[in-house]
Amino acid sequence: MTNTEARALELIERVRAKPARFRDAQVTMAHGAGGKATQTLIEGMLAPAFGMSELADAAPVGDLAVTTDSFVVKPIRFPGGSIGELAVNGTVNDLAVSGARPLALTLSLVLEEGLPAAELQAEVEAIARAAEYAGVAIVAGDTKVVERGKCDSMYVTTTGIGRLDPRADLSPSALVPGDRVLVSGAIGEHGTAIMLARGEFELDAPIESDTCSLWPAVDALLDAAGPSLRYIRDATRGGVATVLNELAAASGVAVSVREADVPIHPSVAGACEILGIDAMYVANEGRLVAFVAPDAAGEALRALRSVDGCEQAAEIGEVKTEPPGMVLVETAFGGRRVMDLLVGDPLPRIC
Amino acid sequence: MTNTEARALELIERVRAKPARFRDAQVTMAHGAGGKATQTLIEGMLAPAFGMSELADAAPVGDLAVTTDSFVVKPIRFPGGSIGELAVNGTVNDLAVSGARPLALTLSLVLEEGLPAAELQAEVEAIARAAEYAGVAIVAGDTKVVERGKCDSMYVTTTGIGRLDPRADLSPSALVPGDRVLVSGAIGEHGTAIMLARGEFELDAPIESDTCSLWPAVDALLDAAGPSLRYIRDATRGGVATVLNELAAASGVAVSVREADVPIHPSVAGACEILGIDAMYVANEGRLVAFVAPDAAGEALRALRSVDGCEQAAEIGEVKTEPPGMVLVETAFGGRRVMDLLVGDPLPRIC
Repeated sequence: MTNTEARALELIERVRAKPARFRDAQVTMAHGAGGKATQTLIEGMLAPAFGMSELADAAPVGDLAVTTDSFVVKPIRFPGGSIGELAVNGTVNDLAVSGARPLALTLSLVLEEGLPAAELQAEVEAIARAAEYAGVAIVAGDTKVVERGKCDSMYVTTTGIGRLDPRADLSPSALVPGDRVLVSGAIGEHGTAIMLARGEFELDAPIESDTCSLWPAVDALLDAAGPSLRYIRDATRGGVATVLNELAAASGVAVSVREADVPIHPSVAGACEILGIDAMYVANEGRLVAFVAPDAAGEALRALRSVDGCEQAAEIGEVKTEPPGMVLVETAFGGRRVMDLLVGDPLPRIC
Repeated sequence: MTNTEARALELIERVRAKPARFRDAQVTMAHGAGGKATQTLIEGMLAPAFGMSELADAAPVGDLAVTTDSFVVKPIRFPGGSIGELAVNGTVNDLAVSGARPLALTLSLVLEEGLPAAELQAEVEAIARAAEYAGVAIVAGDTKVVERGKCDSMYVTTTGIGRLDPRADLSPSALVPGDRVLVSGAIGEHGTAIMLARGEFELDAPIESDTCSLWPAVDALLDAAGPSLRYIRDATRGGVATVLNELAAASGVAVSVREADVPIHPSVAGACEILGIDAMYVANEGRLVAFVAPDAAGEALRALRSVDGCEQAAEIGEVKTEPPGMVLVETAFGGRRVMDLLVGDPLPRIC
């Protein structure tokens, strides 16, 4: 480690040791982007007020797990999916990665006055299809309408209820040095598809959102690795990089990622390069990151690859001892760099 | 009954016998107002797609009840409350009137870019206070941010989980002729407070929202009336009139209301008269309507009046046989008129 690197690490650790405080005068788009600003809002204002710990994707209530998410993605339809499908899969996946078999969803719609009935009907059907595919029932709902312009077509909030699977013994602080890091497929497709669908860039690539239910993948991992499965997260806002950072911090370990082993579609890699963003920070809506004890990692990876849509699953890195709380990337060219939490707001309204 | 009245009733019954179909080309504000248009959206599009029956305020999942609601009230602060308090009480009340003791809430925020942090902090604190008062834990949450103008300060979605109370045996089709109709307090205060707070009318009256948790009232009713308690509903969007209409239809009975017995604050009565609206259709956020067998009605009313905030509870009418599905009002002057479901949209974004 160079001196500059060491000083940078020391500074980052010092900043991290302080409890987050919300000091901004206003809410900004960055507070919704899933990076540091979001963390500050949650840890500095919401979690203390409600006495919550916010790291988990779903909270236990008896033998059930409960999770909620609002979806404000723009545009509401994009290659590979739409807001309705996303709202089902996103919430189903928060249950799945918490080790809970998804059972039921509630659905609340905020609709924009003037929304064409055909667009609403299409999303209602997308929701029904995705729910049926994921094996969850829509058990309760609500609808509100706001004036034209006070919402982008529709915002969708889903709350999921699942039953905690007895095979799962997952904890964000369970990572130990030697654990292997798996991803369930190629990264960055959802976020890249959304960015291209917005048409802000002069770029046209055949990239589809990866939105899908992750319960089959989690089910396979639980079967193959059982208690050797330390923790799972779906890599949504903030991407794989954010998941790795949050868990390195929660477990007080380092994570080392081998860049060359991270599966990525050439079109996504190309689009990200042109747009000047790192695919590791791009949102996925059907990809998980799993941490597995070394003796079970091979079996877990085989099980994962046998699941429909997870054929490209890969082992991308390893949990290390030093420096605690940090994620380091070994680049394809033999270099090493810190992969920190996002500070800014490259990709708002991605889900 | 006059000939005109008879023809009107026949027409209404004919319209009602048909399953609702969603035929509008676009979503309008009326679809969010809680009346006929909302019913058409739910029964004609949402319920068939999801295989739901939509009359109940909460759906059973095992021995739990689950309900969800989005809150888009404008302005977010108003005399007697704010959107955060409303979001807690509204969802707690949907559980309570379903005979479920509220246990836990999830909370999802859609925030407008530029929202002052102090306003967010105030709502976060209002949510925490209301949740503590109602005895529910906030167990999971989510936050999204949308661009300035794409939301009015904030939209709040809460999902509630409660445990079904073994004393409750409630059904919307359980009403039988002779049952008494109770309300838990003076009506129309929430909706009137919101209308005045919007400042669209040259009217200033000391009216505060009635927002509060209804679990203590439901608890008292269950204790006092047990299985003689047929059904309870909170009278939110569409007011007491909408509750009575929906239940008359669900049970195939008539409901007769004695206008003079309906408790109403003089300021609310005055404001409604000036605004040309009927307080029976105005939203409440802390008032329930209970249907009780005649032998238990007196005891139920005494129990209700002993609850903090329900001192003005009253018996306002009775379930009758004819004409099935209809609500009739006996006016203070000895007349009688039909009180039908709302068709238009007098009061959008009231909750």
